[in-house]
Amino acid sequence: MSKGITSRKTDYSQWYNELVVKADLAEHSAVRGCMVIKPYGYAIWEKMQAALDKMFKDTGHSNAYFPLFIPKSFFSKEASHVEGFATECAVVTHYRLKNDGSGNIVVDEEAKLEEELIVRPTSETIIWNTYKGWIESYRDLPILVNQWANVVRWEMRTRLFLRTAEFLWQEGHTAHATREEAMEETARMLGVYADFAENWMALPVVRGRKTENERFAGALDTLCIEALMQDGKALQAGTSHFLGQNFAKAFDVKFTAKDGKLDYVWATSWGVSTRLMGALIMAHSDDQGLVLPPKLAPIQVVIVPIYKNEEERQTIGGLADTLIAELKSKGISVKYDDRDTHRPGFKFAEWELKGVPVRIAVGTRDMENGTVEIARRDTQTKETVSQAGLADRIEQLLETIQHTIYEKALGFRDANTVEVETYDEFKRVLDEQGGFVSAHWDGTVETEKLIKEETKATIRCIPLANKEEAGVCIRTGKPSTQRVLFARAY
Amino acid sequence: MSKGITSRKTDYSQWYNELVVKADLAEHSAVRGCMVIKPYGYAIWEKMQAALDKMFKDTGHSNAYFPLFIPKSFFSKEASHVEGFATECAVVTHYRLKNDGSGNIVVDEEAKLEEELIVRPTSETIIWNTYKGWIESYRDLPILVNQWANVVRWEMRTRLFLRTAEFLWQEGHTAHATREEAMEETARMLGVYADFAENWMALPVVRGRKTENERFAGALDTLCIEALMQDGKALQAGTSHFLGQNFAKAFDVKFTAKDGKLDYVWATSWGVSTRLMGALIMAHSDDQGLVLPPKLAPIQVVIVPIYKNEEERQTIGGLADTLIAELKSKGISVKYDDRDTHRPGFKFAEWELKGVPVRIAVGTRDMENGTVEIARRDTQTKETVSQAGLADRIEQLLETIQHTIYEKALGFRDANTVEVETYDEFKRVLDEQGGFVSAHWDGTVETEKLIKEETKATIRCIPLANKEEAGVCIRTGKPSTQRVLFARAY
Ligand SMILES: [Zn+2]
Ligand SMILES: [Zn+2]
Repeated sequence: MSKGITSRKTDYSQWYNELVVKADLAEHSAVRGCMVIKPYGYAIWEKMQAALDKMFKDTGHSNAYFPLFIPKSFFSKEASHVEGFATECAVVTHYRLKNDGSGNIVVDEEAKLEEELIVRPTSETIIWNTYKGWIESYRDLPILVNQWANVVRWEMRTRLFLRTAEFLWQEGHTAHATREEAMEETARMLGVYADFAENWMALPVVRGRKTENERFAGALDTLCIEALMQDGKALQAGTSHFLGQNFAKAFDVKFTAKDGKLDYVWATSWGVSTRLMGALIMAHSDDQGLVLPPKLAPIQVVIVPIYKNEEERQTIGGLADTLIAELKSKGISVKYDDRDTHRPGFKFAEWELKGVPVRIAVGTRDMENGTVEIARRDTQTKETVSQAGLADRIEQLLETIQHTIYEKALGFRDANTVEVETYDEFKRVLDEQGGFVSAHWDGTVETEKLIKEETKATIRCIPLANKEEAGVCIRTGKPSTQRVLFARAY
Repeated sequence: MSKGITSRKTDYSQWYNELVVKADLAEHSAVRGCMVIKPYGYAIWEKMQAALDKMFKDTGHSNAYFPLFIPKSFFSKEASHVEGFATECAVVTHYRLKNDGSGNIVVDEEAKLEEELIVRPTSETIIWNTYKGWIESYRDLPILVNQWANVVRWEMRTRLFLRTAEFLWQEGHTAHATREEAMEETARMLGVYADFAENWMALPVVRGRKTENERFAGALDTLCIEALMQDGKALQAGTSHFLGQNFAKAFDVKFTAKDGKLDYVWATSWGVSTRLMGALIMAHSDDQGLVLPPKLAPIQVVIVPIYKNEEERQTIGGLADTLIAELKSKGISVKYDDRDTHRPGFKFAEWELKGVPVRIAVGTRDMENGTVEIARRDTQTKETVSQAGLADRIEQLLETIQHTIYEKALGFRDANTVEVETYDEFKRVLDEQGGFVSAHWDGTVETEKLIKEETKATIRCIPLANKEEAGVCIRTGKPSTQRVLFARAY
């Protein structure tokens, strides 16, 4: 397309912003911080939702729905939670507007709420207040519930998908009879997220544990998956929290155990959001536009006929009809782009911008030769192949593309994960190439904050696969037992 | 179950309220007017969503997502819309809470919004403000978009599913180049709703047109489907609006037509909500609990083994395994209830309460005889049948049940749709049996309002299938050209 997008090299941030808009994924709305997710972007999100939802159900979870509003007082019940979430939020104070007599619509001061309502930034409080009524005995446990919902966290600086005031997400909230079971659930759902990221988004992730400083407000333990974007910055793609008995205590949720004893219920929560859309775009796309892994592409194959007259168009149309039917029977989504209003070159650029994994072009010479031209979006390679066995070939090609995209991202991440021994080396790597920097740290919040202040790098996680390794903290020289993963992050 | 529910005869309203809660469909939350949709209730809603979503996509629509918040000033832009929707609503006035120093969380007065935000009661305004950026020429049309979302309309008296401050719905918003195309779309989506109500919910509906007085705020024409509940009250189950150019004019959305002329865009909107859950429950259920049409039942078949010892349990379990596999391969959802903690009688009552269409009981004598006992939830009949060919038999039975439920509801509606000629007869029918009352009306808003004041009956619709028929208005005696359908309504 002539109106190209800024290259990643020129300005990665600008490239992303332009790509999201030009590929028709999302745009800013008239409401500060709130985005409009356009049909093409939403179609990708729907594919993500469907895959995740199935994984949640396969692991025994059901969906439910809890109120959008949370009474202000609920936030005060869990001490650390209130600090984390009750600050920047949307506050509903009134429930009526009125005409002021001179034609203006104004807030009706007589309709002031006794207690303000907060638009949910996350739902632990309202859900645990509800669970209190659902749980009496161990027989009522576990509760394995998920919610697909919108949430609001007031943000001053917003970026489409990555940081918006309103976003869409899912939040799982489970209740268990034992600490062990809740911890297992926390780990299980991290596994689901990692599986989804790697096998659907083609996004390699590091499974890890957050430091105390980076934990979810109200959690005893936060597990996470961390991914690397093409500009060398990390992105947290999902979190799973072991909440201990904090929320059960805050909302007085006890159960009678098998042995007759009364105890507080154990909790987890876990979530991923439309932020994943940002990760998907930033991890794989290029200067020509989106690169979508086939499993999440709303259109997996586009067929563009190239003809000079109605007769040629009809001949190619016949081939296309057969091919489309074969592809659809294999569950492959396909678009036949025979618009008269645009030239083939324009169409090629448009579908490239939109990240359709496979493009098939068919012209009159192809019809004579019994061939078509196949173009791969990920490698931007083309080849002319026989029309015979085409549907099978495409089915295999889509699988190959899914793997190739994953392996490219994995190669990039591996090349950009560096072990360093000194603070100078640490800072040089961060400045010169970015990426994940694996280094020893003395385990204190003070040092963690100091490093963040001095370098803007945060501890993304303590990888679960970490091996014990004696060393010294890069910043303080104090002893350390293992490396942690630092990065500058979204 | 020993803790039975109030019978419909004793108190229909109470019966409904108890049923919704005892069948684990929904409950009131700590937030006034907002409900919690519990997993079993949400599973039914998910089935509704999936069926509707497929119908929307099959008719060319895509999903998208627009902001939860709408700037207050947007409502003032369409004159009749502001009166209809900008009154009872949730108003966001601040974006921050703070600690007041003595440990209380209070609204931060320094974080007051310049312009208040309204939590969307419906999205015409924010969507048409967005469409302005999407539409330049006839080539950009039609736009066929749907949104699944939560909306809020402040309600003083709420009832689970039927009237809640927050509810879930879908809202379609389409943009067209011509009046005719928009009107066709309005009719098409009414057809989709009627199809869904009848073929999925087993709910016969009257397709009709609202009177001017009952139209959607901002619409030129509102089509609707109206259903009859068992207490003789009507329930509006879906609406489809032809909005003319009202919102295009309010938000200045013009397009260049093929002939080069500039014109305002034509609009429709259409929606159904979690209110359908209320309709589903009230239309079919009985004093023993829910009666669910098989197509929307989260669990279609429950198998209850009846055994005295582990050996018997194992033998029955073997049969169950095979049957479950066969049923699942037919796409039938099945639950094997072998809980040790409850007796068969308890389980029977529980699944009856939850409306599972088919219950299979298998005891030791059944195993000896090669039989099982099948109980139908809708008719509450039982029969003992051979284990041979059981899966096929159940598949057919589910289809029979779906039809039977529909036909029962249709019979009820037909028996409770009465033509009357005089106002006395009109009032007597309303008081003695309720139902739809077909009567002549002079066509004026004044008479419509007068009848409503005097009888609490409203004009549900002017049926689309109406035949022309000269008559006189039951209230004023003035001439009328056709009958309209009155009822007391939810
Ligand atoms: Zn591979
Ligand atoms: Zn039938």
